[in-house]
Amino acid sequence: MPIPIASLDTPAALVDIPRMHRNIQRMQQRMNSLGVRLRPHVKTSKCLPVIQAQIAAGASGVTVSTLKEAEHCFKQGIRDVLYAVAIAPGKLRQALELRRSGCALGIITDSVQGAEAIVAFAREHDERFAVWIEVDCDGHRSGLAAEGTVLIDVARILSVGGQQLQGVMTHAGSSYELDNPEALQALAEQERARCVLAAERIREAGISCPQVSIGSTPTALSALSLDGVTEVRAGVYVFFDLVMHNIGVCVAEELALSVLTTVIGHQQEKGWIITDAGWMAMSRDRGTQRQRHDFGYGQACSETGEWIEGARVTGANQEHGIIALGDASVADLAVRFPIGSRLRILPNHACATGAQFPDYHALDADGVVHTWSRLHGW
Amino acid sequence: MPIPIASLDTPAALVDIPRMHRNIQRMQQRMNSLGVRLRPHVKTSKCLPVIQAQIAAGASGVTVSTLKEAEHCFKQGIRDVLYAVAIAPGKLRQALELRRSGCALGIITDSVQGAEAIVAFAREHDERFAVWIEVDCDGHRSGLAAEGTVLIDVARILSVGGQQLQGVMTHAGSSYELDNPEALQALAEQERARCVLAAERIREAGISCPQVSIGSTPTALSALSLDGVTEVRAGVYVFFDLVMHNIGVCVAEELALSVLTTVIGHQQEKGWIITDAGWMAMSRDRGTQRQRHDFGYGQACSETGEWIEGARVTGANQEHGIIALGDASVADLAVRFPIGSRLRILPNHACATGAQFPDYHALDADGVVHTWSRLHGW
Repeated sequence: MPIPIASLDTPAALVDIPRMHRNIQRMQQRMNSLGVRLRPHVKTSKCLPVIQAQIAAGASGVTVSTLKEAEHCFKQGIRDVLYAVAIAPGKLRQALELRRSGCALGIITDSVQGAEAIVAFAREHDERFAVWIEVDCDGHRSGLAAEGTVLIDVARILSVGGQQLQGVMTHAGSSYELDNPEALQALAEQERARCVLAAERIREAGISCPQVSIGSTPTALSALSLDGVTEVRAGVYVFFDLVMHNIGVCVAEELALSVLTTVIGHQQEKGWIITDAGWMAMSRDRGTQRQRHDFGYGQACSETGEWIEGARVTGANQEHGIIALGDASVADLAVRFPIGSRLRILPNHACATGAQFPDYHALDADGVVHTWSRLHGW
Repeated sequence: MPIPIASLDTPAALVDIPRMHRNIQRMQQRMNSLGVRLRPHVKTSKCLPVIQAQIAAGASGVTVSTLKEAEHCFKQGIRDVLYAVAIAPGKLRQALELRRSGCALGIITDSVQGAEAIVAFAREHDERFAVWIEVDCDGHRSGLAAEGTVLIDVARILSVGGQQLQGVMTHAGSSYELDNPEALQALAEQERARCVLAAERIREAGISCPQVSIGSTPTALSALSLDGVTEVRAGVYVFFDLVMHNIGVCVAEELALSVLTTVIGHQQEKGWIITDAGWMAMSRDRGTQRQRHDFGYGQACSETGEWIEGARVTGANQEHGIIALGDASVADLAVRFPIGSRLRILPNHACATGAQFPDYHALDADGVVHTWSRLHGW
């Protein structure tokens, strides 16, 4: 049932629905104009109304980070699901059950051992999995070198083993370390080129490799060309956050997730406001620590969302946030921010902060709050 | 229903039950010998079987970090509950409902505004709250100076306002920054002395102040005397973690919480093992970052719990953990740690890691796993 914001208990995770829709439109239109499908990564929201808004705007299928997300999406009628973490052999049974239920689940691997495990399990259960090979485009984490022989070995193991090689996929995770458009454009091009190269090498080896999937929010918003790419995966754009703001791919008015908190104390001589949004609410994510602006555990705003310049969550215990004001005019802290008054905190990392809450409280253009549940756990 | 560990999906939060019981006994016996009650902080586990084990061992009531924990404990028959976060005026109604249901809920404040809000609400609803005043013993976070006039002002507002001043309480949170016994003993004595001083000053002002509550796991395990203290609150001792290990108040064999994970990939030339325990499983807590040993996002152990020397989670994405081996013998990574094999990761901070999971999987002495649910959210 819709409820007014004033009645919310704190801490609460607020979603600004109009901003969220604008963010969804922005990414979808960009992908449309670049001529690729958008397969949003739902690990950011883990929340059905958000995912439905992405699909309504034109998304093609979803990307998930857990099989629980896959099951949840499939139960809601979303068939085209890519599980974008190299699958542990122990999870193949759950993947099989999803496919037997009618879910067009794609799984990924980046190793000979992983491919062999898929083939062995598939043979045992008479299944033909849709498999993607993960490519490493920037040395960030996982994936096979686009130029290496293992890539072809893995493609051949899957193909000879009767699996459907769906394509190649990569994630330019190192984009989170950049903060200027030229470097982002260069990385986006590197991501594109490496992944396309991997697909071409597999095709040259005589193995079908129809799809080329890339994506991270910063590169998706920076790429000048996506020639050879068939789909883009991106997640955090739906809410954006302070990390994305520091990278330079969004402005403050696009930040759609915040934490509503109540002032519970002051340490006047230190210039501290104590709130009930500690790290349990904000998460321990310190993603802006090594960026252009270190926002501590978050940027403080008024209850209605206006930035309070220099007011950052400089410390966090489990249920206590410490906001320090950057300026010297802190003589009247308890007057300016009385106990019981409320603030909103913009998070460093929307994926991590959202995960701390069982529900979002989504605020529509009329100021009415809707409760949207989200997934927790695996 | 009990299940064998081999059947667990990963990531999973494992609790070593025999270790947990030994940790509970250790703290309870120490408090008994120091002649004070132990009121364990259940924010660490948020899990009924853990709390019940603490009470069975002799604990007197519980400390909670949210009113949700208070409600949960009270429903399970635990009447004596201290909500140890300065109460937001907006939460007084929920506190009132708990008290009207028969819960002996204590609330805390550390300000004139907070005390006035409690008195005003109590008058309006004809209630007499049990209130504790928070004292600042180390400049760490919240609380009033033991030597200041505001302490007496707040005590008088509560007393004149018809509330039951239960006592004073403090938390030596700065103990987490120490790592030698002498400094810990000195801080424990400071915590004791400041809180006792605050109580004595209130009593000298003619106001009853029966209770003196202190506590943090490091100081509770370091105090040589607790003269004048009536109860100790401590939480993380029930599981311990790498932060506590660095502080020096536990040994490796006392760490009772770990995350079971599966190897999903390798980056052989970098010496990396990729697992399915990323920051969603470990939390983003980097509590050991500035300590004696930086464990990254956790220390890797074999599936049965033996430390793998130098193997730490050096990087974490949402569902990917990166384990780097400290030694040079990484030539055979995929042989030593094949895809599908399992590891256990010891967390930096048990409170933060536990919070990422809907359930613990608790392993008893016979190797049988029990599923213990835990609270999430507020």
